[in-house]
Amino acid sequence: MLESWSEGPAKAQIVDFVRSVTNEDGPKYVAPEARIAVFDNDGTLWCEKPMYVQLDFLLRRFKEQAEADPSLRERQPYQAAYSGDLTWLGDAVAKHYDGDDTDLEPLVAAILTAYEDVGVEDHATLIAEFFESALHPTLDRPYTACGYVPMVELLRYLEANDFTTYIVSGGGRDFMRPVTAALYGIPPERVVGSSVGLTYRDGHLYTTSTPEFLDDGPVKPARLWSRIGRRPIFAAGNSNGDIEMLQFTANGAGPSLQMLVLHDDAEREFDYVLGAERALDLARTNGWTVVSITDDWTTVFPS
Amino acid sequence: MLESWSEGPAKAQIVDFVRSVTNEDGPKYVAPEARIAVFDNDGTLWCEKPMYVQLDFLLRRFKEQAEADPSLRERQPYQAAYSGDLTWLGDAVAKHYDGDDTDLEPLVAAILTAYEDVGVEDHATLIAEFFESALHPTLDRPYTACGYVPMVELLRYLEANDFTTYIVSGGGRDFMRPVTAALYGIPPERVVGSSVGLTYRDGHLYTTSTPEFLDDGPVKPARLWSRIGRRPIFAAGNSNGDIEMLQFTANGAGPSLQMLVLHDDAEREFDYVLGAERALDLARTNGWTVVSITDDWTTVFPS
Repeated sequence: MLESWSEGPAKAQIVDFVRSVTNEDGPKYVAPEARIAVFDNDGTLWCEKPMYVQLDFLLRRFKEQAEADPSLRERQPYQAAYSGDLTWLGDAVAKHYDGDDTDLEPLVAAILTAYEDVGVEDHATLIAEFFESALHPTLDRPYTACGYVPMVELLRYLEANDFTTYIVSGGGRDFMRPVTAALYGIPPERVVGSSVGLTYRDGHLYTTSTPEFLDDGPVKPARLWSRIGRRPIFAAGNSNGDIEMLQFTANGAGPSLQMLVLHDDAEREFDYVLGAERALDLARTNGWTVVSITDDWTTVFPS
Repeated sequence: MLESWSEGPAKAQIVDFVRSVTNEDGPKYVAPEARIAVFDNDGTLWCEKPMYVQLDFLLRRFKEQAEADPSLRERQPYQAAYSGDLTWLGDAVAKHYDGDDTDLEPLVAAILTAYEDVGVEDHATLIAEFFESALHPTLDRPYTACGYVPMVELLRYLEANDFTTYIVSGGGRDFMRPVTAALYGIPPERVVGSSVGLTYRDGHLYTTSTPEFLDDGPVKPARLWSRIGRRPIFAAGNSNGDIEMLQFTANGAGPSLQMLVLHDDAEREFDYVLGAERALDLARTNGWTVVSITDDWTTVFPS
């Protein structure tokens, strides 16, 4: 197992941790039912650059909406989606990282209303159809082949050691669920994410435009507790939005492991630390395991 | 299996249903991962009379709070809890069934603030301690022996047939979780219930007084979807608050079974239909399985 991991400190720390918590005679033994492992998704289990996969999915929806309603073509983000010129979107994100979220407001409003009043099962079907054909814009592969092979191996390694694995992501809960089984072997009931409210009508559930949870930062530990009712002993992330989930995992009474994926491989994936600066500082201070894609992974994506 | 079920239409309907959805060669076959079964808790898995178990737990908390703060003794519901005279509480509930919720307001406010700012793990410890000694007021047994034996057998029967079982209750999610494994063999991650918000601080999570979800009526299907991401094929309840969960289960594309527990056994448990009238009407109209405690269960509680 862990065939795509180079021999090195990251792999050694993971293997040592798993051996110690599964050794019934050792001081760090953890009962199987308490072996909870949580994984961020974007940038931790699959590629999040040049944009979140969900954003690509939503831009296609905005374009459809603008095709159906010409008045939308004059407004952002529909204008960008319709024209295919994403400059406005890039600028909005850059302004966000400078602390200015004004351009994010119309984007968030468009995201919240994109699937308003669509049945939850119909919504899932649309997402499954997207993944049947959608390609990553630069990596020359389908999105369904953009999961990190070493991380999927890590999921299987933990499960083989009686861990229960969960995704705890800032991405949309109902966006991830139709594809996580195929990508990662994780079923919908083990996917925690951001959500809009649902409404019940005549025997069916429909998506609303009411924001419910943005599963990021301090919301991540609260949402994973609400879903699991246990404090994890293993947590993996890659950005500042994962800090509180990692700290919550670190502050349990027993042994735990925290891990960050460092994107330092421009050749095979991407090279960036934007949005991960504080998390990487805390990793140094707190002894969290930092996984370098360049040094620690012999393979990144499935062939 | 189902040893405490009398031979009769209810048991036959359950067994026929399970046989049909597990028969790989039959027209009603359902893949194991889609065999989701959801159970209400109060009045479906354990006794809910003369009052909800959680209300007993909370009244003890209100009494503690009134002992610590004499000013509370002049206010309801603390006055009732402190004095032990529960007339006010009975009247408040009776008024509720007459459509007047004015007296429920101070009760709800007291419930919401009862464990404000208590750490989630400390809260769980207090609940576990309550169940170590608390006795049912009239049945002469601990609350941990107030689960229905035939329903626990039904959970095991479904699980033996590759169903995944969940509790979906109007009761408090964090109240049920510390005891559901011992009572029903259901771990915390398979318990869905009402909740207050949680807040993260310095590596830990704390209970707040902010209402989050009242998991009853049309909220039940929305909450179970948020947790499971699949439409159940088996649902069991006992009251009007379960109607939408049963209807959501009934409206799936494939086969399903809906079941109501009818409390008609004054000698061994309680005899009441208050709060279940509409559900029982719908059971007749829709062919839901009605389980009579008198006729269908040879044993009610563990000996």
